[in-house]
Parts: sequence; C-alpha cells; structure tokens
Amino acid sequence: MSNFPTKDLLSASVLSKGDIERILKIAETMAPYANKEKQSDLLAGKVLATLFYEPSTRTRLSFETAMNRLGGRVITVTGMESSSLIKGETLYDTGKVVENFADIVAMRHPTPGSVAELAGAVKIPVLNAGDGAGEHPTQALLDMLTIQKERGTIDGLTIAMVGDLKFGRTVHSLTYLLSHFKVNLILVSPDRLRMPAEQVQHFKDQKIQCTETESLEEGLKHAQVVYMTRVQKERFDDPAEYEKYKHFYILTREMVERHNAQMTIMHPLPRVGEISLDIDDLAGAAYFRQVKNGVALRMALLAIMLGKVEF
Amino acid sequence: MSNFPTKDLLSASVLSKGDIERILKIAETMAPYANKEKQSDLLAGKVLATLFYEPSTRTRLSFETAMNRLGGRVITVTGMESSSLIKGETLYDTGKVVENFADIVAMRHPTPGSVAELAGAVKIPVLNAGDGAGEHPTQALLDMLTIQKERGTIDGLTIAMVGDLKFGRTVHSLTYLLSHFKVNLILVSPDRLRMPAEQVQHFKDQKIQCTETESLEEGLKHAQVVYMTRVQKERFDDPAEYEKYKHFYILTREMVERHNAQMTIMHPLPRVGEISLDIDDLAGAAYFRQVKNGVALRMALLAIMLGKVEF
Amino acid sequence: MSNFPTKDLLSASVLSKGDIERILKIAETMAPYANKEKQSDLLAGKVLATLFYEPSTRTRLSFETAMNRLGGRVITVTGMESSSLIKGETLYDTGKVVENFADIVAMRHPTPGSVAELAGAVKIPVLNAGDGAGEHPTQALLDMLTIQKERGTIDGLTIAMVGDLKFGRTVHSLTYLLSHFKVNLILVSPDRLRMPAEQVQHFKDQKIQCTETESLEEGLKHAQVVYMTRVQKERFDDPAEYEKYKHFYILTREMVERHNAQMTIMHPLPRVGEISLDIDDLAGAAYFRQVKNGVALRMALLAIMLGKVEF
Repeated sequence: MSNFPTKDLLSASVLSKGDIERILKIAETMAPYANKEKQSDLLAGKVLATLFYEPSTRTRLSFETAMNRLGGRVITVTGMESSSLIKGETLYDTGKVVENFADIVAMRHPTPGSVAELAGAVKIPVLNAGDGAGEHPTQALLDMLTIQKERGTIDGLTIAMVGDLKFGRTVHSLTYLLSHFKVNLILVSPDRLRMPAEQVQHFKDQKIQCTETESLEEGLKHAQVVYMTRVQKERFDDPAEYEKYKHFYILTREMVERHNAQMTIMHPLPRVGEISLDIDDLAGAAYFRQVKNGVALRMALLAIMLGKVEF
Repeated sequence: MSNFPTKDLLSASVLSKGDIERILKIAETMAPYANKEKQSDLLAGKVLATLFYEPSTRTRLSFETAMNRLGGRVITVTGMESSSLIKGETLYDTGKVVENFADIVAMRHPTPGSVAELAGAVKIPVLNAGDGAGEHPTQALLDMLTIQKERGTIDGLTIAMVGDLKFGRTVHSLTYLLSHFKVNLILVSPDRLRMPAEQVQHFKDQKIQCTETESLEEGLKHAQVVYMTRVQKERFDDPAEYEKYKHFYILTREMVERHNAQMTIMHPLPRVGEISLDIDDLAGAAYFRQVKNGVALRMALLAIMLGKVEF
Repeated sequence: MSNFPTKDLLSASVLSKGDIERILKIAETMAPYANKEKQSDLLAGKVLATLFYEPSTRTRLSFETAMNRLGGRVITVTGMESSSLIKGETLYDTGKVVENFADIVAMRHPTPGSVAELAGAVKIPVLNAGDGAGEHPTQALLDMLTIQKERGTIDGLTIAMVGDLKFGRTVHSLTYLLSHFKVNLILVSPDRLRMPAEQVQHFKDQKIQCTETESLEEGLKHAQVVYMTRVQKERFDDPAEYEKYKHFYILTREMVERHNAQMTIMHPLPRVGEISLDIDDLAGAAYFRQVKNGVALRMALLAIMLGKVEF
C-alpha cells in the first residue's frame, strides 16, 4: 500500500510538506488526462461513490470527471434524494452500506465532522468534499497546485485571502497547507468574519508572517496572489446579516491594475459578484484554470488512495 | 474538423438542406447501435455533460443512451440540484467551469436564449436540448428522420401541425427544417396559440404552402402526416387558461380512419390525452418509433460535433 | 433464451424452489465480482435504466453497482425529477419510451402494481425494486442468499419475522420464497400490523409451520434467524399512529445473548432504532453482509434476465 498518511482525506492538516509536494507532482503527471489530451484506464474496474448531501455542481462533477477519464465508474447520491437520511439512518450505517458498493467515496455534507463520522465506519478511503464550515481539503490542494503552476513556486509569496475567513472551509484547509511554506499571509475580512483565533495562532506558531486587516486596498498593496472568496448565504442564520456582508469586498480591474497588473487572482467559485467580469481576460485571472487543475488533482488523489500510483 | 455549420447546435435555423440530409444519412448508419444490434466504441474517452435545469426524462436519457452506447461517458446535473444556479452563478461561469470537465454539453433550460448564453462562454460544442419556448433542434431533427423513414421522403408531403404552435419549441424548430423542403403545411391551433407571425412569414418567403385553421377536421382532410403536440402547462401564467386549452384537440382513432387510415401520427411526447390510446396499434402511429430514432439521431450529432465522423 | 419463468421479476411468487436454488447458485459465482476481487465485462454493451419514483439509496446503488462491476452502463431517473410523471404521462407511455433506451429496467414506485403496469408495456425485462406496500422480490432473494450463507441451509430453520408484517413489502416477498422450504415461521407483530390473512393462509396451505404472536420475547425463544423490519412512516396516514408503532420492538444485545447468542440477525435496512448498535459486533449480526450479498444477487438476476448466463 501507499505511504499516504491516513486511510481518508478528511482534513488538510494531516498532510506534511512532503505529502503536499508529492501529491502536486503526481497531479502534474495527470494533466494530459485531465486536459483531454490522453486517455487512461488506470482506474478501470474501480467504483467511486459521490455522496453529496449538500448541493454542488463543480466539486461533484470534478470528482466524477476525474474518475471517468481514468476509466473508473461512478455511482451518485445527491442532496434531494438523500433518501436514507430522510428515513433516519445514521451516517455510520450509510457508510457500512456504501462500502459494499464502492472502492472509494467522495462526500459533501452540511455538518462539520459528518464526513469523518462516515469515514470511521468504513474500510474504504473517504475524501472530504466539504463538510459545512469545516474543511475542503481537495479544493485547498488544487489551489496549491494552481499557485505553483501560476507562480512557479509557493515559497516566498505574499498571499492575500479575502472575504469570509470565519466560515470559509476552503480557506481553513488552504491555510493548513500554506503553513508548511514560507509565505507572507494577509488576512482581509470584516471583523465579524475574521479567521478563527486558533488558526491565526497556528500560523504564528509556524513562524508564518500573518497580518489581519479589514481593508482590501491594504491587503492588495504587496500581494502577488489574491484569493477571493464568496460569503456563503447558507452559513448565516440571519438573512439581513448576509445581505450586509455579501458584497463587502469587490475586486475591480482598476484595483488590480493600480496595485500589480501581474497579480494572480484566484477564487474557489462560484463567484457572485466578488470579482468584476472585466477581470476575466487579465493574464493573472486564474479561477477557471483552478477548475482544470482540480480534475488533475483529484485524479492524483483517487489514484494514490486506491493504491494505483506510488506514493 | 467537420463542416458542421456552427460550433454549437442552438437553433434548427442554421442548418441548410444539405446539412439536414447529411445528418439524417449519418443517423441511419447509427441505427444498429441505437437498436442494440451492434456495439461501438466510437466515443470512448469522451465525456458528455447533460445539464438539465428543467425536468426531462426522455431527452436527457436519450442523449445519455446515445453517449453510453457509443462507448462514451456521461456526467449529469438535473434541475433539482442545479446548485450553482441556486448560489447565484451566471451561466457564463457555469460554462467556463463545465468545459473543463466535458467534451460536449447537452443543455435544457426554462429560459429562451440561455443555452446560447452558456455556449458563448465555452470552446466545446453545446447542444440545445430545449430552451423554454425557444427551440429544440435535436427533437426536430429526429422528427425529420422519422418522417423520412415512415414515408420514404419528405418532399411532397402534406403535414398538419396541431396544438400549441405559439409556445411549442419543437414545432418552432421543426418548421425551420421543413421550410427547406417542398411541403404543404397545415397549421391547426386555437387563435390564442397560433404560430408567431414571423415564422408564418418565413414559410411564405420560402414559397412553402401554408394554411392556418382552428379546425382539426379541416387539418386532417389532406394530411399524410399529423404532428400532435401537448399544450404545456409551464408556458401559461394563468392555470385557468391552461385548463381551457389543454384538451382543445384530441385525435381519435375514428377521425384517423375516416380521413386516412394510412396517416403517419407523430407526437414529441409526453402525451397527456391528445392522442387516444386506441390509436397506438395503428400502423401509422409513429410516436414511439420517434423515440427510437432519437437515439440514432443524437448518436449522429454527438459523433459529428466531436469530429468522429466525416461531415 | 433462458428458462427464467417470466420476462420480468415482479413478484417472488412466480419463482419455484428450483428457480430460487438456481438463482442463489449463480449469485454465489458472482461473489468475487461483487466483492471487488475480480473484474468482469459480462454485461458490456448493456444498459440498465434505474427508475426510482420513490427515494432509495441502497437498492438503487446496489443495482447500479451490480451493473457497473459487470461492465454494463446505467441511466437513472430519481424521484425528484420524475419529470414525465409531473407532466402527466402514463406509466405505459414511460415504458414504451424507456425500452428504446435500456436493455433492462429496475423500478421503484410508491404504488403497488405500478411496476407491473410499466412492465406490461415493454418487451425488455423489468425488475420490481419495490412497489409501495406490494413486493420487493430482489430484496427477498438476497435475504435467502444470506440465510443460506449464514446458516449453511434454509430447510429446517426457525425464523422469526418481526415488526410491520402488514405493509412490509420485503416480508411479503420473503414469505413467498420461504414457503417453498421446510421452515418454522414465527410472525411477531402488533395486532394492527399483522401479516395479511391470505398470506398466512398461503403458508398453511403449503404445510408451513406458522405461529403469530405480539411478543418479541416469545418470538425469540426458538429462533435461529430473526428478521427485524422498520415500521415505514410513509405507509401511515396518521403520524400519531406511526409514532405509536415505530419503536414497538427493539432488539437488544441482552435479549439476543439470553435467548441464543448464535442467532442470525437480519434487517433489510435502513434501521431506525429497531436493532441496538451494540449488536453490530455479534457474530450473527448479518445485516451489512446482506448488503454485500445484494450486489452478487442482483448481478445474477441481471445476467440471467439478459440471457448472459445459463438458467
């Protein structure tokens, strides 16, 4: 079997610097398959179950595409027909059932920790595809792959993370990964949506440069990479509060060009106004390339966790 | 690459007579695969994304069957989990995402023009699988294939189109195709649901014989082909108005036998009462054969637009 | 073609003892494929349509896994997008459409008899995957396979069936199968949820030993196999009545160990409290093995009904 640190990928925090680098390297070798240039049967005979108890197009289709393009098969449960859930089944039981069908699971769920609950019940590997305000490690890994491909390196970069840093699961996972590298982080958020104190402390423990500010202009001053995020409606109990914050930050072309026209602009998508459309044709607008990198990255993880590439 | 007139198939209006004839010819060669007599791997390694933002069984499954039986793979988003839509993403962004996953897209959406909007954002081919009251070109092409197979020819036929000719997207697309041929059209509809004036004018410009009437009996008098349509509830704001029109025309076996027992009877399905069940075993009842022809026709389009057959 | 007794599998009642034994035998040969030990292309080129008009994870995924692991393809319609139904199409018409797409159908529907309605319209085989309070023959067959594997034999066993024996479709189908064997049945249910009188009479006609009781303790006294069932909320018009019965019987570890620590414990799942979690690690807890057996059993049925293994 492989040297992957755990049976499952539930949190980005379990990955060492070496793990991250090896995953990104394998993802690079998957690019020709992800980019539709070559065909592969590496995962023929394997079945991926995508269990999505929360709506998602991008992440589910990304996993399914990765599996299909490596010759594997997919079975799917999406939110609206999360039938056994309706019938009151525990995630433990769902896991014990699904492990008889699939070789590997990718799961999204609105409750933090729920993916771990299912993973604990089964012998097959489980990938966390987003658990509420918890983590989203495969997104964070594709973000790392994108930064490396766009900038040639991760070490030495100044990276501004902008938006909802409190509930944003992508940001949580990404910060775990970045903390292994020599980066200068600028955390831009409204006071109400600041990154949890323990995570900021984690950076400081790792000797990562880390500044917090409410000002996007301040954040952009020295940034080589800006990582915009959407304020997620589904994380707010009070709709009025969501309305207040949803367009707190809007990145415009004028701002980018004034600060650094070569800036790499990232977003986990979907965007709902945080990035002006006229930014799309800037050379540094990398958010749709993130999607492409996501297929290669997930191919790598599926192959690694199924023991089909050396790790 | 191919001589297909456009990257996408959004409207039947872009197809020339030569295009239509070539598509039907290729569809004929696909029949053994559609009819489960032969297997093919023509589209192995290719991925079709079916994006259905409006419910559909027939059209989505027809596309997916066509892809599967040619060895390709399918990823699917159906209406109820149109998640990114819920999150407020534009169709432009959805397109930029999906083109990283799929080689070709078949899309249905309740809003006319929306499929074109997504198609404009992406480099991969997009097939309009129905955009509200707009068009439904693949249905119209399978209808043409059916007429040709049932009658041996299209030229010279008298064809009655019956029902909602105002909102019926199938009828809109079909009339574009028929206007290249020497047909005699009889348009049967209640005054409220007449074919849009510009489309009738289009026929007249093409020197197509075209009569309008509210009387089904009148329409059947000389018809060799009768094309029944369902009045679509979802096109009416006022339920009472829908109730008034939904069974405005009912084709009975007695009517068919009185006018022309050899008449070809077509319907895009689902039917909800427009055609009596006792018509099903008439030799001319072609509506379920339309479904079969649909698989071959969509196989042809997928193969053409993916550059896998000469066009 | 095969000697399978009918084109479709709608009811367990059509199967003879010989049929059942042959199906179980073929299912045993499918185990290596179901258990992910071997790969097969037995059903390459074949398409299964899963039509699920009622929510289900387990049964749908089990069929889809069986098809995928034998190299076949799957097209799916799930409840929430049962679009043609919404549009008012009859099951007859849905069948006439789907038979142009698929080689075989597995269908679930809330109304007893509805699967038979669709099956009667089509030439391809249809498997009843649960029709309301009607039947669920593939579940019953996997239960038989499980009993045989767990106990080495079916003949001679004392089997307690516990819970909702009135509406429980699984129990209905299972009793048809068991009536061919020399078993001693103990029917444990509240008076309100007793097995229909005609089914009890059927046992007596077959000279099957059959006792009814409301007491779980009574039922467990001599049981070698206990088959627990969930009281299904969706079968009750009055929620208060459901509340009264939902936890009428709860099997605890203490009860099992007191009566017979080697007892085989089965459940069609999902369970919602009828079996204590601390039973899971008893050697006789067979409910998750039932799931595994289900894949092999459905592989066998798909292969038999598609004429790909001798029967």
